Amino acid sequence: MELNENQVYQILAKVESINTGVHFCNTTILTTEGEHINLKLDFDQLPFLAMGKVYQFEAKAIIKLDDELILKCLSIEPAEKVLSDEELQNILDRFYVYAPIPMLDIKKGIEKHLNKIQNKTLLDVTKRIYQDNERAFYLHPAATKFHHAYVGGLSYHTLTMLKLIEPFVQVYPYLNKDLLIAGTILHDMSKINEISGVDGEYTKEGLLIGHLVMQTVDIDRVARELKVEHEEEILLLKHMIISHHGQFNFGSPKKPQTAEALLLWFIDTIDSKFTVLGEALEETKEGTFTNLLSVMDKMRFYKGNIKK
Amino acid sequence: MELNENQVYQILAKVESINTGVHFCNTTILTTEGEHINLKLDFDQLPFLAMGKVYQFEAKAIIKLDDELILKCLSIEPAEKVLSDEELQNILDRFYVYAPIPMLDIKKGIEKHLNKIQNKTLLDVTKRIYQDNERAFYLHPAATKFHHAYVGGLSYHTLTMLKLIEPFVQVYPYLNKDLLIAGTILHDMSKINEISGVDGEYTKEGLLIGHLVMQTVDIDRVARELKVEHEEEILLLKHMIISHHGQFNFGSPKKPQTAEALLLWFIDTIDSKFTVLGEALEETKEGTFTNLLSVMDKMRFYKGNIKK
Amino acid sequence: MELNENQVYQILAKVESINTGVHFCNTTILTTEGEHINLKLDFDQLPFLAMGKVYQFEAKAIIKLDDELILKCLSIEPAEKVLSDEELQNILDRFYVYAPIPMLDIKKGIEKHLNKIQNKTLLDVTKRIYQDNERAFYLHPAATKFHHAYVGGLSYHTLTMLKLIEPFVQVYPYLNKDLLIAGTILHDMSKINEISGVDGEYTKEGLLIGHLVMQTVDIDRVARELKVEHEEEILLLKHMIISHHGQFNFGSPKKPQTAEALLLWFIDTIDSKFTVLGEALEETKEGTFTNLLSVMDKMRFYKGNIKK
Amino acid sequence: MELNENQVYQILAKVESINTGVHFCNTTILTTEGEHINLKLDFDQLPFLAMGKVYQFEAKAIIKLDDELILKCLSIEPAEKVLSDEELQNILDRFYVYAPIPMLDIKKGIEKHLNKIQNKTLLDVTKRIYQDNERAFYLHPAATKFHHAYVGGLSYHTLTMLKLIEPFVQVYPYLNKDLLIAGTILHDMSKINEISGVDGEYTKEGLLIGHLVMQTVDIDRVARELKVEHEEEILLLKHMIISHHGQFNFGSPKKPQTAEALLLWFIDTIDSKFTVLGEALEETKEGTFTNLLSVMDKMRFYKGNIKK
Amino acid sequence: MELNENQVYQILAKVESINTGVHFCNTTILTTEGEHINLKLDFDQLPFLAMGKVYQFEAKAIIKLDDELILKCLSIEPAEKVLSDEELQNILDRFYVYAPIPMLDIKKGIEKHLNKIQNKTLLDVTKRIYQDNERAFYLHPAATKFHHAYVGGLSYHTLTMLKLIEPFVQVYPYLNKDLLIAGTILHDMSKINEISGVDGEYTKEGLLIGHLVMQTVDIDRVARELKVEHEEEILLLKHMIISHHGQFNFGSPKKPQTAEALLLWFIDTIDSKFTVLGEALEETKEGTFTNLLSVMDKMRFYKGNIKK
Amino acid sequence: MELNENQVYQILAKVESINTGVHFCNTTILTTEGEHINLKLDFDQLPFLAMGKVYQFEAKAIIKLDDELILKCLSIEPAEKVLSDEELQNILDRFYVYAPIPMLDIKKGIEKHLNKIQNKTLLDVTKRIYQDNERAFYLHPAATKFHHAYVGGLSYHTLTMLKLIEPFVQVYPYLNKDLLIAGTILHDMSKINEISGVDGEYTKEGLLIGHLVMQTVDIDRVARELKVEHEEEILLLKHMIISHHGQFNFGSPKKPQTAEALLLWFIDTIDSKFTVLGEALEETKEGTFTNLLSVMDKMRFYKGNIKK
Repeated sequence: MELNENQVYQILAKVESINTGVHFCNTTILTTEGEHINLKLDFDQLPFLAMGKVYQFEAKAIIKLDDELILKCLSIEPAEKVLSDEELQNILDRFYVYAPIPMLDIKKGIEKHLNKIQNKTLLDVTKRIYQDNERAFYLHPAATKFHHAYVGGLSYHTLTMLKLIEPFVQVYPYLNKDLLIAGTILHDMSKINEISGVDGEYTKEGLLIGHLVMQTVDIDRVARELKVEHEEEILLLKHMIISHHGQFNFGSPKKPQTAEALLLWFIDTIDSKFTVLGEALEETKEGTFTNLLSVMDKMRFYKGNIKK
Repeated sequence: MELNENQVYQILAKVESINTGVHFCNTTILTTEGEHINLKLDFDQLPFLAMGKVYQFEAKAIIKLDDELILKCLSIEPAEKVLSDEELQNILDRFYVYAPIPMLDIKKGIEKHLNKIQNKTLLDVTKRIYQDNERAFYLHPAATKFHHAYVGGLSYHTLTMLKLIEPFVQVYPYLNKDLLIAGTILHDMSKINEISGVDGEYTKEGLLIGHLVMQTVDIDRVARELKVEHEEEILLLKHMIISHHGQFNFGSPKKPQTAEALLLWFIDTIDSKFTVLGEALEETKEGTFTNLLSVMDKMRFYKGNIKK
Repeated sequence: MELNENQVYQILAKVESINTGVHFCNTTILTTEGEHINLKLDFDQLPFLAMGKVYQFEAKAIIKLDDELILKCLSIEPAEKVLSDEELQNILDRFYVYAPIPMLDIKKGIEKHLNKIQNKTLLDVTKRIYQDNERAFYLHPAATKFHHAYVGGLSYHTLTMLKLIEPFVQVYPYLNKDLLIAGTILHDMSKINEISGVDGEYTKEGLLIGHLVMQTVDIDRVARELKVEHEEEILLLKHMIISHHGQFNFGSPKKPQTAEALLLWFIDTIDSKFTVLGEALEETKEGTFTNLLSVMDKMRFYKGNIKK
Repeated sequence: MELNENQVYQILAKVESINTGVHFCNTTILTTEGEHINLKLDFDQLPFLAMGKVYQFEAKAIIKLDDELILKCLSIEPAEKVLSDEELQNILDRFYVYAPIPMLDIKKGIEKHLNKIQNKTLLDVTKRIYQDNERAFYLHPAATKFHHAYVGGLSYHTLTMLKLIEPFVQVYPYLNKDLLIAGTILHDMSKINEISGVDGEYTKEGLLIGHLVMQTVDIDRVARELKVEHEEEILLLKHMIISHHGQFNFGSPKKPQTAEALLLWFIDTIDSKFTVLGEALEETKEGTFTNLLSVMDKMRFYKGNIKK
Repeated sequence: MELNENQVYQILAKVESINTGVHFCNTTILTTEGEHINLKLDFDQLPFLAMGKVYQFEAKAIIKLDDELILKCLSIEPAEKVLSDEELQNILDRFYVYAPIPMLDIKKGIEKHLNKIQNKTLLDVTKRIYQDNERAFYLHPAATKFHHAYVGGLSYHTLTMLKLIEPFVQVYPYLNKDLLIAGTILHDMSKINEISGVDGEYTKEGLLIGHLVMQTVDIDRVARELKVEHEEEILLLKHMIISHHGQFNFGSPKKPQTAEALLLWFIDTIDSKFTVLGEALEETKEGTFTNLLSVMDKMRFYKGNIKK
Repeated sequence: MELNENQVYQILAKVESINTGVHFCNTTILTTEGEHINLKLDFDQLPFLAMGKVYQFEAKAIIKLDDELILKCLSIEPAEKVLSDEELQNILDRFYVYAPIPMLDIKKGIEKHLNKIQNKTLLDVTKRIYQDNERAFYLHPAATKFHHAYVGGLSYHTLTMLKLIEPFVQVYPYLNKDLLIAGTILHDMSKINEISGVDGEYTKEGLLIGHLVMQTVDIDRVARELKVEHEEEILLLKHMIISHHGQFNFGSPKKPQTAEALLLWFIDTIDSKFTVLGEALEETKEGTFTNLLSVMDKMRFYKGNIKK
């Protein structure tokens, strides 16, 4: 990129490295054109920057003491705040390993299921929480390791689970489909605040409270705003959320005690296991075993050698 | 029923009670017309009779010492050996609590799935074993207690599981559908010899060997007859059978190590739980809890009180 | 009690039995003078009445068809809503087995500790929740069985725990006393809504959500009202609440991860055990063993036979 | 070894290394005289060769392009197929760490016990399976690690267990000696196919089915050939085999439910532990502890310092 | 028995019932001749008497107020204190269900093994403790329920275990036979004080300390008296005693860490199981299962139906 | 230090290194003045010396063959045998990381509690054992790793526990204070012989018997010397010692079955955890987590960021 003195540039780029110097903070950013650029930040801009994330930078070319042109950062905006869905998907394709389906397709799928909810209380609460978290939801991994540990993993995992609901409702018609859709969309939503981003670590709230209780608290908050906090739907939804790890050992303070809560646990478990397994088998020769898979009870799985 | 001396009668009836007298064995049988009849048996006919089962009796009216006409049994045939499918279904409707769907519908459903198997080895082995056990398969309960403990429970449970295969293959296309169908049809087939009938007890073979190993042995026997005992399909099928209880604690000598074996465990577990749960919820008022359900980890489940 | 036609009476009494007749509901109530009185209720008054609870009844003497004077209920108010603390304590002494110390002493003790909290956020939140639940707090048992299963057990248990805080802060000065007081006062507060009263059963919210999560939700609600929901104190307090059962097995979704949370678990456990143990030893002869104590791991304890 | 053009040599040797060249496969073999020789193989001979095993090679000395004499392999036979017992024992002494007793002594010992079986069904089935596996049985280790992990370990372990049967039958005369001998000889026989040789790995059949079920299937096969598959002896023998790991956790689908099955588990466990312990104590100074022994629950054992 | 006024009688009898009257304690005793006799005791004689035990009574026939002759007890001596071995064995045969072998044979067997100990320290300590407990040792059951729960069970169990030592020393020659004999004879000796006699209950020392630690303390006491408390033999012997329950769960504060301690655990476990199993199979028809056996993991065992 | 031929020196010093030469053993010692000195020992003096310990050496300066003055050791005495309390404390300050409070303060604290025991039997036994171990008690760590792993850790841990007794006796007045003091002082006393000193290893007695049983044996020994071995106090005290690890899994052969034994377990657990936690939090920044703490269930703890 050629710099002209005092010119201001808009640069969409991913943060590659951050080093603190004496007067400035030196960061290397990677532009959508694939160019590595050195950008100077003031120290008080540092808290707004995270490694590996994409931002819309506004920067100005100025002259340093020794006559050199440098690029000084004026403002920073997270990409997901300033871009449209289509622009965002472009960014994801360029900079990240994204889920197996493009973001726009995941989004279309999830919203299709969301809009199938007929129970008004469930629809209102679920939609409100979904909208509050919409952008982050499509950028977040489903876990820091184990399963769906890539950008978009959280929403991709949610979509696959949604696909399994209909067949179960067909076979066991006493199941309440609205509850299942609402519970599935919300079950891991608070992972957005439990884990701090793509290469993220657990947050202190994540470690001390956990996404099960965080989400339950959030459902209560929204239900109060909508004045439905005492309705049966809210009780059933909260129960699904806190029980969806199925067992005390995995951090559920209550075990599933409704049919819908039980099924949510099963399809969550199944999707996390079968997605990992599918990825591992893809890299395994027929007639041999995969590596040890930690999410699969530390076992190795065999890829059969027969015609389909 | 009016008796005429020396006349021979064909009676289709269920055994209601068996009492041993001095000269004969006195049994009470219930005919398809709903009549209770006293039938005399010789002691050496006793081993062919089981309480609660339906037989085709041939009997003759003869005169006892004190001038009374009695009905003497000439021969005994189990109903399932002499009746057509349609006649058998009639019997089931009349005498038993049968599975929620009629036997003929279950049978049609299962055979439809069986015939979808495209892999020749799997088709041949599965069909052969299915045919060897066909009648008993549709009359057997799925367990002595816990789940599907009614006549026809075994086949009904199998059919429901078969219905869940397709959706999973849609969502996780790397799964081998032929293996899943074959494994599902065969997974509990040896319960026929593990448990001795409707109100049955475990057999000694059932207690000392168990239906997982019994079925594996039987697959090997049939595979040898068909000269396919060294083919990969047989190894994969045997593995599905011995691992379908999922964990050592539940009597599987190996944990599931193929994707298909893992799914078989899941859908077996899910169907046994959701069937029990559905039956319990049916008898439960909205807004209250079921009784303790032993197959559900001794828990009580809540039936929500919201509009569907 | 002598009845005069059309006179209206104010009666403070405990509900002893409830029977539904054709036109009315017949209840027997026990007055503070020890008299059993028959009171007629309309069916729509029934939901406001619970067996074993004390109410302020307003009733009128009227004449029935057959010329008999009957007492017809006009209004019902729970005793704790209309009585002063002193009047309430009188009622408790007369009608119930109360905790080993009088209610007023427990209340004085607890409020003394509450007012020692110096951290403003913790003080405000704790006080607000305390005041919202004040009356019920002093009337509730600590559990339906196991420990402190008498009227006032909840507040008595809380007070004893508060007494143990100071010594621990002396020995381990890094502990935060304000957090310990706040956490102790709030830790079981939601049992008021988890268990429905003296001879009570678990409520559906109690069974599906549980007092740990219910209380965490309530802290969040109050913190939002006070606009302190993002302060560190709230995070630490919530963590103490959800982790105070110490282990996953006992329904804590997170294990204690702060010093104060860890101590809360210890003193909660210790007080529930040593109170039960003290009661059991009181009824045991020296040199012999108590009965099996279910809260003590189903063990029997030995009462030594030595001079103190 | 001196080579003469076009002469054919018979060489008994162990494979030391295998390298694939452009035209040939170059292997180094170690002869019984201790000479290292380079032998050329065609690529299609490779599947018949395993590292560390001993073969009877037929080879011919031929001239390469550059006038050098090379040794070209004509045929390969596993040593155990072409040698007598005495010749084989010679080979074992020369090339391997063998069990503490010579192969011929182990064999004599095992066959002495085998021939003591008086029950015809048990004798026939056991002898047939023994003969089917005879050579491999004396060459196999008992495990890939843990215990008896040397050539001949499987048969040596079996012999020691056989020695413990008689004393137990003396002390508990209700035990059936024939069953104990048969079960002991067969209990680990399928390890021959579960583990692929001396330095071997688990086979896929070993991992997916396991030697307990593999052996049960094989007993059924032989019993069918001998037309005794429905005799009680076969049921009891199968039960001993599948239950000999004693507990679900160790891969037994059924726990021992006959006296003989229970004892088989005990003497199998005892011999595997006391053999490892004896080897470890041999290398330990009196008055000190052994290393951590993984087969002994990861514990260290103390070697006492007292006169015997 | 005919009574003469003022005559004194020596009566060997078992206590059948004890009732406290106003002036005396009325007991019914059963004489060796099979006669039931009423015997009056003073209240201060009561502590020396236990239900079901045999005593040498001295009694005098005296006249009561109403002219009736009654038998007044003068002195009480436990039978085992005043009788020779032969006389005692007579008593046991007459009054109790004794172990399967007569007391004198058990005693001869145990002393034969005891005298085989060659290590002087082990011999001295074991003999001293044996002699301190000799009589009680042959009269005690091995447990209050579970296994060997009859008079003499303790010594019978010990003898059977001693018989298993020699074969194990033959097969694993590194085992120290002296240690094994000493440890076996002493391992349960303190049960004499842990359980209070034939129909006995656990003593308070038994419940609070347990026979493992009680015996260790006693070995230390005797070793001090013999001035060998610091010798290696004592350490090894103590370790065998405290570790002979094998696992923490069964009350061993240390797991076996010497070869001899490990074997002691095995033969103790084996003998308690195979003795119970033998007794249960004796009462079971061939081809059927025993009842649930609590010492066998609450399992039922199958009695095979084959020729021996 | 300047050496004069044939002069004899008294040197108080810590052993820094030990090397065996041809004629002598060369050790480096560190004097209280901070000087490193080479000291020659005869080989037979070696067993009296341990790395890291402080001794009073008597040494003489003599001339070696090559005219060099060397320092030859004449005698060795452990510092704790020859120094007064005040001198010893000086040594500790100079050479070791000691507990957070000086030895003399710990000692004063412990003896103050000891002398509060009013029950004569408990006082006599506790005092005798205390005096037998007095010096070592103040020099020993409480564990080889985990908690209180510094010189004096054992006595410091004991003192803190003693401080917690009084508050508990206040709150639960049925607790016997004398028993609690005696049990607390003695509970870990045998660690002195279980672990061999500062940087010590477990002794063979420690590994094979353990400090719980060792201490119980020692209480019995002293009780016999004082002729109180059959008194109830001794039984209660022994029970507290063997049960103070609370659970079988942690090596207690009996679980606590008296109120005092139960409390001892709690305050032992609490002090080991809260001491470790306090040390870890001291090194942790506010608002962050500690490292994994192995004694705290391998968890990380959060240090809150709020005003106290």
